[in-house]
Amino acid sequence: MSRYILTIEYDGTPFCGWQRQKDVATAQGRLEDAMLPFLKKKITLFGSGRTDTGVHALGQVAHFDFDGHIDCFRLMECMNAYLLDVPMNVLSLQEAAEGFHARASAIERQYLYKILNRQAKPCLDANRVWHVSPRLDAAAMHRAAQFLVGKHDFSTFRAAGCQAKSPVKTMDQITVTQDGDILAIRVVARSFLYRQVRNIVGSLVLVGRGKWSTQDLLDALGACDRRRAGPTAPACGLYFVGTKYPCAQ
Amino acid sequence: MSRYILTIEYDGTPFCGWQRQKDVATAQGRLEDAMLPFLKKKITLFGSGRTDTGVHALGQVAHFDFDGHIDCFRLMECMNAYLLDVPMNVLSLQEAAEGFHARASAIERQYLYKILNRQAKPCLDANRVWHVSPRLDAAAMHRAAQFLVGKHDFSTFRAAGCQAKSPVKTMDQITVTQDGDILAIRVVARSFLYRQVRNIVGSLVLVGRGKWSTQDLLDALGACDRRRAGPTAPACGLYFVGTKYPCAQ
Repeated sequence: MSRYILTIEYDGTPFCGWQRQKDVATAQGRLEDAMLPFLKKKITLFGSGRTDTGVHALGQVAHFDFDGHIDCFRLMECMNAYLLDVPMNVLSLQEAAEGFHARASAIERQYLYKILNRQAKPCLDANRVWHVSPRLDAAAMHRAAQFLVGKHDFSTFRAAGCQAKSPVKTMDQITVTQDGDILAIRVVARSFLYRQVRNIVGSLVLVGRGKWSTQDLLDALGACDRRRAGPTAPACGLYFVGTKYPCAQ
Repeated sequence: MSRYILTIEYDGTPFCGWQRQKDVATAQGRLEDAMLPFLKKKITLFGSGRTDTGVHALGQVAHFDFDGHIDCFRLMECMNAYLLDVPMNVLSLQEAAEGFHARASAIERQYLYKILNRQAKPCLDANRVWHVSPRLDAAAMHRAAQFLVGKHDFSTFRAAGCQAKSPVKTMDQITVTQDGDILAIRVVARSFLYRQVRNIVGSLVLVGRGKWSTQDLLDALGACDRRRAGPTAPACGLYFVGTKYPCAQ
């Protein structure tokens, strides 16, 4: 039995998230279906992380097992031909190192959240950004966000339905940068709680609007209470950028 | 009679270009219709330049005349409310200086052309880029493009149906830059021939693929013959970035 690893990008708009479900289009479902014509066998993919409906992926990673040799390049080409009518691509496909697991082996995950901060609605960026009209102070958001870096109980930013055993996570990095009317929030950690990024972004926007001080954000974090967080930022602004694994893999 | 100036952005995908036509959606047509509820009068817009079907605009400029005072901010808000279901926004609207004309007063026009240069089809960039699979040499394209800067007879890059009196134009600037798998070609001139940018991009891609040398591009330009140009690059990669006017306006 050999293990293979795929890197996948998709526009989350038409998908009901990553995880295979009955009767609706999901990223995992479409990918598994796309393997069938070539492998002639039902395959189960294991993703490095799930994405919600509408969330995009620039570098989702998944693995699968197969009993026999696969011509990786031909399988990738075949899958991409099958995926021509959906906004999803397999970017790479190769045999994995011994013991590799797309979820368990990950040592770092990176997300990007994009906000369009202007009066006019999104146009060329529709479904790619969260549209926030009131003027945001990106520098204040960045300063406040630095207090979330490190090991914390993130219960405040954890959504119902989270399957993580512990609400304690270590945030490696958060940056808020501005380029014209686009704010980019980049978040890096080994792993995240369910909707942690979107809940943090929703609270940072309160800071950016001047409704919350840095202390308000700290108080919310310290309360370990979901009801103390700001609103959840919408899915369409979120991008699963990628996952890092130890070099050996 | 007062003259007003608008700046408009649109995703060109759903529009049959800028110019109003009967029975099809065009940018000019939708904008003029959007003025009706507020101004209670049929208005004709004069754009700074036409865009073809599928070509995007980040900063199209247009003017119109109206007999009477207009609350510009309220008109803009009203138009944007009317345009909520189409990927188009009015970004600014104000009274124009005496003698201003969106097309005739322009002293500079800027276009951007985006190429996605990789094997996999566009995903999050669908309808926003030209997908070119073979590896392009952006530096070679930039070097060759510099020979197009200055005053030339651009007949080779002029499409049928061009209404310009002369094929002689002065190209102020062309740059080809690369950021990951995106190539950006920026072109600046006072005015352009019909499809000049897309025809130039098509030829530069031949240079980038190594099919044409810089000399081949020069020979094509010198031939003043449309049949000597490369293929016309598709509309979806082209963005009308904006128009500059003398400071007084």
